[in-house]
Amino acid sequence: MEIKVLHQVMEWNEDVSKEVRETLAAHSVCMVNLMGSPGAGKTSLITSLIEQLAGRWRVGVIEGDIAGQIDAERIAALGIPAVQLNTDGACHIEAMSIRNLLPMLPLDQLDVIFVENIGNLVCPAEFDIGESLRITLLSVPEGDDKVEKYPLMFTDTGCLVINKFDMMPYFDFDLERVRQNYETVNPGAPLYCVSCRTKEGLDTLADWLSQQIRQAVR
Amino acid sequence: MEIKVLHQVMEWNEDVSKEVRETLAAHSVCMVNLMGSPGAGKTSLITSLIEQLAGRWRVGVIEGDIAGQIDAERIAALGIPAVQLNTDGACHIEAMSIRNLLPMLPLDQLDVIFVENIGNLVCPAEFDIGESLRITLLSVPEGDDKVEKYPLMFTDTGCLVINKFDMMPYFDFDLERVRQNYETVNPGAPLYCVSCRTKEGLDTLADWLSQQIRQAVR
Repeated sequence: MEIKVLHQVMEWNEDVSKEVRETLAAHSVCMVNLMGSPGAGKTSLITSLIEQLAGRWRVGVIEGDIAGQIDAERIAALGIPAVQLNTDGACHIEAMSIRNLLPMLPLDQLDVIFVENIGNLVCPAEFDIGESLRITLLSVPEGDDKVEKYPLMFTDTGCLVINKFDMMPYFDFDLERVRQNYETVNPGAPLYCVSCRTKEGLDTLADWLSQQIRQAVR
Repeated sequence: MEIKVLHQVMEWNEDVSKEVRETLAAHSVCMVNLMGSPGAGKTSLITSLIEQLAGRWRVGVIEGDIAGQIDAERIAALGIPAVQLNTDGACHIEAMSIRNLLPMLPLDQLDVIFVENIGNLVCPAEFDIGESLRITLLSVPEGDDKVEKYPLMFTDTGCLVINKFDMMPYFDFDLERVRQNYETVNPGAPLYCVSCRTKEGLDTLADWLSQQIRQAVR
């Protein structure tokens, strides 16, 4: 009984994610679903990438949070079109919310939309929101055992970004352990190390992302 | 239809959590439900508290993880009775799992059981697993906006512990902001700052916890 209902909900989410994908394609917009733990630096990565992509691509943002609008305010302060999505307790974003929010963004004037998912290494990975690309963000202080402990988030993603890389001297973080575990669950997928504070590594990540956007919008 | 099924599941979890509570009471055991983000330091806090409580209380541990047994191995290496619970993808622990696991621990030889919940600031807070006490763990690198963004986790807890306090010089973490937000959603609830690395603050936390255990098991 329970499984049957869950299955219906998943199918329904899948139908809507297709709708979202069609809308994005019709407007030549690439949508990036950014996922990671609370405090991994998702909003900081988005603001850093906005800076890096300036002059190349026109960016919009959907900020997902359980409550509040702290993050959307940070983005809007940069003059970037931003919408705050409050899930009111839900631990992930679903495609229906994205479908309902897309008309609030000037799609014809955008090339890429970053969706900041709820801070959570588990549930967001289970829901296709119609994105063109997934990026998983892990930060050095979280530790090097996360790929083993939360495998789906690292298996079902297009790219792993390791943030707060300037903090490596202060934490016991074995980058090779992460790299090997990630390669095992997601062979050949790219991994970038960055610091949104020192800006280390952001240009390389932005170049890769720019290529992905180019492929998605052409 | 969906809401109805969810309601049944919740009621059922509630029934089982009562059963768990009765079992614990029959054996005079205090069960602590420890929740926090991935990488906040939940296992480190448990190992630190095992050390602090040694000679005062007999400790057992249930380690919740989506996959793997890294954490249970760390605990068992200390000679502490430990059981690994793998949720196989689920983002939280439910009471039924605890009911099934309790017989695997020597309840008559224990005073306190720490349950390390799945690393997640959202879903675990929604499920009563039959615990005597909830502790929410936040770490300095996660940032000072978490109470506003994940309110239930901080509202519905008996104590907030801030870990990695030795990292304060390296992060922009406004302790007063956290304290005020926490006081707003959970008036009068205690807050402790610790570092499992430097051991700062652990003795004070252990004294408070020891009082809670005494009340629960008498």
